[in-house]
Amino acid sequence: MTHSLKSWTLDVERWTFLLMQRIYLDDLSVGARFISEQYRVTEAAIITFAREFDVQPFHLDTAAAEASAFRGLAASGWHTAAIAMRLFTTGPLQFTGGAIGLGVDELRWPIAVRPNDQLTLETQILEIRESKTKPQVGVIRIRNVLTNQNGAVVLSYLANALVQRRTR
Amino acid sequence: MTHSLKSWTLDVERWTFLLMQRIYLDDLSVGARFISEQYRVTEAAIITFAREFDVQPFHLDTAAAEASAFRGLAASGWHTAAIAMRLFTTGPLQFTGGAIGLGVDELRWPIAVRPNDQLTLETQILEIRESKTKPQVGVIRIRNVLTNQNGAVVLSYLANALVQRRTR
Repeated sequence: MTHSLKSWTLDVERWTFLLMQRIYLDDLSVGARFISEQYRVTEAAIITFAREFDVQPFHLDTAAAEASAFRGLAASGWHTAAIAMRLFTTGPLQFTGGAIGLGVDELRWPIAVRPNDQLTLETQILEIRESKTKPQVGVIRIRNVLTNQNGAVVLSYLANALVQRRTR
Repeated sequence: MTHSLKSWTLDVERWTFLLMQRIYLDDLSVGARFISEQYRVTEAAIITFAREFDVQPFHLDTAAAEASAFRGLAASGWHTAAIAMRLFTTGPLQFTGGAIGLGVDELRWPIAVRPNDQLTLETQILEIRESKTKPQVGVIRIRNVLTNQNGAVVLSYLANALVQRRTR
Protein backbone atom coordinates (compact mmCIF):
# COMPACT_ATOMS: atom_id res chain seq x y z
CA MET A 1 0.00 0.00 0.00
CA THR A 2 2.77 2.37 0.97
CA HIS A 3 4.72 1.22 -2.04
CA SER A 4 1.82 1.83 -4.41
CA LEU A 5 1.28 5.29 -3.00
CA LYS A 6 4.96 6.12 -3.43
CA SER A 7 5.01 4.92 -7.05
CA TRP A 8 1.92 6.96 -7.78
CA THR A 9 3.53 10.06 -6.27
CA LEU A 10 6.63 9.59 -8.40
CA ASP A 11 4.49 9.23 -11.53
CA VAL A 12 2.67 12.46 -10.76
CA GLU A 13 6.03 14.16 -10.38
CA ARG A 14 7.25 12.75 -13.67
CA TRP A 15 4.12 13.83 -15.56
CA THR A 16 4.09 17.26 -13.97
CA PHE A 17 7.69 17.57 -15.10
CA LEU A 18 6.85 16.58 -18.68
CA LEU A 19 3.75 18.76 -18.94
CA MET A 20 5.31 21.99 -17.67
CA GLN A 21 6.50 24.45 -20.27
CA ARG A 22 10.22 23.89 -20.43
CA ILE A 23 13.05 25.95 -21.84
CA TYR A 24 16.28 25.46 -23.78
CA LEU A 25 19.58 27.30 -23.85
CA ASP A 26 18.30 29.08 -26.97
CA ASP A 27 15.54 30.76 -24.95
CA LEU A 28 17.98 32.64 -22.69
CA SER A 29 19.75 35.95 -23.10
CA VAL A 30 22.78 37.28 -21.27
CA GLY A 31 21.80 39.56 -18.38
CA ALA A 32 18.34 38.07 -17.90
CA ARG A 33 17.24 37.66 -14.27
CA PHE A 34 14.84 35.17 -12.74
CA ILE A 35 13.26 35.33 -9.28
CA SER A 36 12.09 32.30 -7.30
CA GLU A 37 9.24 31.98 -4.86
CA GLN A 38 9.94 32.42 -1.14
CA TYR A 39 11.10 29.55 1.06
CA ARG A 40 10.68 29.56 4.82
CA VAL A 41 13.35 27.83 6.91
CA THR A 42 12.17 26.29 10.18
CA GLU A 43 14.27 25.62 13.28
CA ALA A 44 13.37 21.93 12.98
CA ALA A 45 14.65 21.81 9.39
CA ILE A 46 17.93 23.49 10.40
CA ILE A 47 18.50 20.90 13.16
CA THR A 48 17.42 17.93 11.01
CA PHE A 49 19.84 18.87 8.22
CA ALA A 50 22.67 19.49 10.69
CA ARG A 51 22.20 16.15 12.46
CA GLU A 52 22.63 14.38 9.12
CA PHE A 53 25.27 16.53 7.44
CA ASP A 54 26.93 19.19 9.62
CA VAL A 55 27.15 18.06 13.23
CA GLN A 56 28.49 21.25 14.78
CA PRO A 57 26.85 22.66 17.93
CA PHE A 58 25.88 26.04 16.45
CA HIS A 59 23.74 24.21 13.85
CA LEU A 60 22.28 21.62 16.27
CA ASP A 61 21.41 23.18 19.57
CA THR A 62 20.03 26.61 20.45
CA ALA A 63 21.86 26.90 23.80
CA ALA A 64 25.23 25.90 22.32
CA ALA A 65 24.61 28.26 19.38
CA GLU A 66 23.96 31.20 21.74
CA ALA A 67 27.44 30.66 23.23
CA SER A 68 29.09 30.42 19.77
CA ALA A 69 30.32 33.06 17.34
CA PHE A 70 26.90 32.83 15.64
CA ARG A 71 25.09 34.01 18.84
CA GLY A 72 22.07 31.88 18.02
CA LEU A 73 21.06 28.91 15.90
CA ALA A 74 22.35 29.18 12.33
CA ALA A 75 21.67 26.93 9.33
CA SER A 76 24.58 24.94 7.91
CA GLY A 77 26.01 26.71 4.88
CA TRP A 78 25.41 23.50 2.92
CA HIS A 79 21.77 23.54 3.98
CA THR A 80 21.56 27.11 2.67
CA ALA A 81 23.15 25.98 -0.60
CA ALA A 82 20.71 23.06 -0.86
CA ILE A 83 17.76 25.46 -0.34
CA ALA A 84 19.11 27.64 -3.18
CA MET A 85 19.12 24.54 -5.39
CA ARG A 86 15.55 23.74 -4.40
CA LEU A 87 14.48 27.26 -5.39
CA PHE A 88 16.48 26.95 -8.63
CA THR A 89 14.97 23.59 -9.62
CA THR A 90 11.40 24.59 -8.70
CA GLY A 91 11.67 28.13 -10.07
CA PRO A 92 11.12 29.82 -13.41
CA LEU A 93 14.12 28.19 -15.15
CA GLN A 94 12.62 24.79 -15.99
CA PHE A 95 15.14 23.36 -18.45
CA THR A 96 14.25 20.57 -20.82
CA GLY A 97 16.24 17.60 -19.51
CA GLY A 98 17.33 19.56 -16.44
CA ALA A 99 20.49 21.53 -15.71
CA ILE A 100 23.61 19.55 -14.85
CA GLY A 101 25.98 21.43 -12.54
CA LEU A 102 29.58 21.36 -13.76
CA GLY A 103 31.20 23.52 -11.11
CA VAL A 104 30.78 26.39 -8.67
CA ASP A 105 33.07 29.27 -7.77
CA GLU A 106 33.07 32.15 -5.33
CA LEU A 107 30.58 30.47 -3.01
CA ARG A 108 30.08 32.85 -0.06
CA TRP A 109 27.83 33.01 3.00
CA PRO A 110 27.90 36.70 4.02
CA ILE A 111 25.48 36.23 6.92
CA ALA A 112 23.85 33.21 8.55
CA VAL A 113 20.38 31.83 7.82
CA ARG A 114 18.23 31.84 10.97
CA PRO A 115 15.05 30.00 11.99
CA ASN A 116 11.97 31.41 10.19
CA ASP A 117 13.98 33.28 7.58
CA GLN A 118 12.14 33.68 4.27
CA LEU A 119 14.60 33.14 1.42
CA THR A 120 14.37 34.12 -2.24
CA LEU A 121 16.73 33.17 -5.07
CA GLU A 122 17.71 35.44 -7.95
CA THR A 123 19.46 33.85 -10.92
CA GLN A 124 21.24 35.98 -13.47
CA ILE A 125 22.50 34.65 -16.81
CA LEU A 126 26.13 35.73 -17.22
CA GLU A 127 27.27 33.76 -20.28
CA ILE A 128 25.80 31.40 -22.87
CA ARG A 129 28.19 29.11 -24.72
CA GLU A 130 27.12 26.66 -27.39
CA SER A 131 29.17 23.50 -27.61
CA LYS A 132 31.48 23.36 -30.62
CA THR A 133 31.34 19.60 -30.84
CA LYS A 134 27.83 18.74 -29.54
CA PRO A 135 25.11 20.84 -31.22
CA GLN A 136 22.42 19.54 -28.83
CA VAL A 137 23.95 21.05 -25.66
CA GLY A 138 25.65 24.14 -24.29
CA VAL A 139 26.91 25.65 -21.07
CA ILE A 140 25.39 28.59 -19.21
CA ARG A 141 27.24 30.57 -16.57
CA ILE A 142 24.95 31.93 -13.89
CA ARG A 143 25.14 33.93 -10.68
CA ASN A 144 22.81 32.71 -7.94
CA VAL A 145 22.09 35.09 -5.05
CA LEU A 146 19.93 34.04 -2.11
CA THR A 147 18.52 36.81 0.08
CA ASN A 148 16.50 36.82 3.29
CA GLN A 149 13.33 38.75 4.15
CA ASN A 150 15.42 41.88 4.87
CA GLY A 151 17.08 41.79 1.47
CA ALA A 152 20.42 40.71 2.99
CA VAL A 153 22.47 38.25 0.95
CA VAL A 154 22.88 34.91 2.77
CA LEU A 155 24.51 33.01 -0.12
CA SER A 156 25.98 33.81 -3.51
CA TYR A 157 27.91 31.84 -6.11
CA LEU A 158 28.79 31.50 -9.76
CA ALA A 159 27.98 28.21 -11.50
CA ASN A 160 28.39 26.54 -14.85
CA ALA A 161 25.61 24.21 -15.94
CA LEU A 162 25.08 22.00 -18.97
CA VAL A 163 21.69 22.54 -20.61
CA GLN A 164 20.03 21.36 -23.80
CA ARG A 165 19.63 23.26 -27.07
CA ARG A 166 16.73 23.06 -29.48
CA THR A 167 17.54 20.57 -32.21
CA ARG A 168 16.75 21.90 -35.66
CA MET B 1 7.85 11.94 26.60
CA THR B 2 9.08 12.46 23.07
CA HIS B 3 10.29 15.88 24.10
CA SER B 4 12.24 14.50 27.08
CA LEU B 5 13.87 11.87 24.90
CA LYS B 6 14.86 14.49 22.35
CA SER B 7 16.37 16.76 25.01
CA TRP B 8 18.30 13.84 26.40
CA THR B 9 19.64 12.95 22.96
CA LEU B 10 20.76 16.53 22.39
CA ASP B 11 22.48 16.55 25.80
CA VAL B 12 24.37 13.37 24.95
CA GLU B 13 25.46 15.00 21.70
CA ARG B 14 26.61 18.11 23.53
CA TRP B 15 28.57 16.18 26.13
CA THR B 16 30.14 13.87 23.56
CA PHE B 17 31.17 17.02 21.73
CA LEU B 18 32.73 18.53 24.85
CA LEU B 19 34.47 15.35 25.96
CA MET B 20 36.15 14.51 22.66
CA GLN B 21 39.74 15.59 22.29
CA ARG B 22 39.54 18.76 20.29
CA ILE B 23 42.08 20.75 18.34
CA TYR B 24 42.99 24.37 17.70
CA LEU B 25 44.51 26.18 14.74
CA ASP B 26 47.84 25.96 16.58
CA ASP B 27 47.79 22.14 16.32
CA LEU B 28 47.85 22.15 12.49
CA SER B 29 50.70 22.32 10.02
CA VAL B 30 50.61 23.22 6.34
CA GLY B 31 50.53 20.13 4.12
CA ALA B 32 48.99 17.86 6.77
CA ARG B 33 46.35 15.44 5.45
CA PHE B 34 43.41 13.90 7.30
CA ILE B 35 41.29 10.96 6.13
CA SER B 36 37.67 10.37 7.14
CA GLU B 37 35.83 7.12 7.64
CA GLN B 38 33.80 5.69 4.75
CA TYR B 39 30.22 6.73 4.07
CA ARG B 40 27.82 4.58 2.06
CA VAL B 41 25.20 6.36 -0.06
CA THR B 42 21.91 4.54 -0.54
CA GLU B 43 19.46 4.93 -3.42
CA ALA B 44 16.79 5.92 -0.88
CA ALA B 45 19.02 8.69 0.52
CA ILE B 46 19.72 10.03 -2.99
CA ILE B 47 15.99 10.23 -3.77
CA THR B 48 15.05 11.66 -0.35
CA PHE B 49 17.59 14.48 -0.67
CA ALA B 50 16.55 15.22 -4.26
CA ARG B 51 12.84 15.39 -3.41
CA GLU B 52 13.61 18.07 -0.82
CA PHE B 53 16.39 20.03 -2.52
CA ASP B 54 17.09 19.14 -6.19
CA VAL B 55 13.93 18.04 -7.96
CA GLN B 56 15.43 16.99 -11.27
CA PRO B 57 14.45 13.63 -12.80
CA PHE B 58 18.00 12.19 -12.93
CA HIS B 59 18.19 12.55 -9.12
CA LEU B 60 14.63 11.35 -8.40
CA ASP B 61 13.70 8.44 -10.57
CA THR B 62 15.74 5.52 -11.87
CA ALA B 63 13.88 5.20 -15.18
CA ALA B 64 14.13 8.92 -15.96
CA ALA B 65 17.80 8.86 -14.94
CA GLU B 66 18.55 6.01 -17.37
CA ALA B 67 17.27 8.20 -20.21
CA SER B 68 19.32 11.23 -19.10
CA ALA B 69 22.93 12.24 -19.68
CA PHE B 70 23.75 10.52 -16.35
CA ARG B 71 22.59 7.10 -17.70
CA GLY B 72 21.42 6.06 -14.26
CA LEU B 73 20.45 7.53 -10.91
CA ALA B 74 22.97 10.14 -9.70
CA ALA B 75 23.13 11.99 -6.39
CA SER B 76 22.56 15.75 -6.42
CA GLY B 77 25.89 17.56 -6.37
CA TRP B 78 24.64 19.39 -3.27
CA HIS B 79 23.93 16.06 -1.60
CA THR B 80 27.50 15.04 -2.40
CA ALA B 81 28.76 18.32 -0.90
CA ALA B 82 26.63 17.77 2.22
CA ILE B 83 28.09 14.26 2.62
CA ALA B 84 31.59 15.74 2.43
CA MET B 85 30.63 18.12 5.24
CA ARG B 86 29.31 15.22 7.31
CA LEU B 87 32.62 13.41 6.88
CA PHE B 88 34.50 16.62 7.71
CA THR B 89 32.51 17.35 10.88
CA THR B 90 32.62 13.74 12.13
CA GLY B 91 36.23 13.12 11.08
CA PRO B 92 39.64 13.60 12.63
CA LEU B 93 39.55 17.43 12.56
CA GLN B 94 37.44 18.10 15.65
CA PHE B 95 37.96 21.82 16.21
CA THR B 96 37.29 23.44 19.55
CA GLY B 97 34.22 25.59 18.93
CA GLY B 98 33.78 24.12 15.44
CA ALA B 99 34.91 25.38 12.03
CA ILE B 100 32.90 28.21 10.48
CA GLY B 101 32.93 28.13 6.68
CA LEU B 102 33.71 31.51 5.14
CA GLY B 103 33.74 30.59 1.48
CA VAL B 104 34.36 27.90 -1.10
CA ASP B 105 36.06 28.02 -4.49
CA GLU B 106 36.72 25.63 -7.35
CA LEU B 107 33.90 23.30 -6.34
CA ARG B 108 33.83 20.50 -8.94
CA TRP B 109 31.97 17.24 -9.43
CA PRO B 110 34.16 15.26 -11.88
CA ILE B 111 31.89 12.19 -11.85
CA ALA B 112 28.51 11.41 -10.34
CA VAL B 113 27.85 9.67 -7.03
CA ARG B 114 25.81 6.49 -7.55
CA PRO B 115 23.68 4.34 -5.25
CA ASN B 116 25.85 2.23 -2.91
CA ASP B 117 28.99 4.26 -3.50
CA GLN B 118 31.38 4.26 -0.53
CA LEU B 119 32.82 7.75 -0.11
CA THR B 120 35.91 8.93 1.77
CA LEU B 121 37.03 12.50 2.41
CA GLU B 122 40.63 13.68 2.44
CA THR B 123 41.32 17.13 3.87
CA GLN B 124 44.64 18.84 3.26
CA ILE B 125 45.76 21.97 5.10
CA LEU B 126 46.92 24.51 2.51
CA GLU B 127 47.38 27.69 4.58
CA ILE B 128 47.17 28.79 8.20
CA ARG B 129 46.62 32.48 8.91
CA GLU B 130 46.43 33.96 12.39
CA SER B 131 44.18 36.97 12.72
CA LYS B 132 46.05 40.26 13.13
CA THR B 133 43.28 41.83 15.17
CA LYS B 134 41.71 38.86 17.02
CA PRO B 135 44.34 36.69 18.76
CA GLN B 136 41.77 34.02 19.66
CA VAL B 137 40.95 33.04 16.05
CA GLY B 138 42.49 32.40 12.66
CA VAL B 139 41.62 31.18 9.18
CA ILE B 140 42.68 27.89 7.61
CA ARG B 141 42.54 27.22 3.89
CA ILE B 142 41.85 23.59 3.07
CA ARG B 143 41.34 21.35 0.08
CA ASN B 144 38.61 18.75 0.49
CA VAL B 145 38.60 15.81 -1.93
CA LEU B 146 35.86 13.17 -1.83
CA THR B 147 36.57 9.88 -3.58
CA ASN B 148 34.50 6.77 -4.22
CA GLN B 149 35.38 3.10 -3.65
CA ASN B 150 37.37 3.06 -6.91
CA GLY B 151 39.51 6.02 -5.90
CA ALA B 152 37.77 8.30 -8.42
CA VAL B 153 37.20 11.90 -7.31
CA VAL B 154 33.48 12.73 -7.06
CA LEU B 155 33.89 16.19 -5.45
CA SER B 156 36.70 18.61 -4.72
CA TYR B 157 36.88 22.17 -3.45
CA LEU B 158 38.96 24.75 -1.64
CA ALA B 159 37.52 26.33 1.50
CA ASN B 160 38.39 28.96 4.06
CA ALA B 161 37.23 28.33 7.61
CA LEU B 162 37.43 30.30 10.84
CA VAL B 163 38.82 28.25 13.74
CA GLN B 164 39.92 28.99 17.30
CA ARG B 165 43.47 29.46 18.59
CA ARG B 166 44.77 28.48 21.99
CA THR B 167 44.63 31.47 24.30
CA ARG B 168 47.87 31.94 26.21
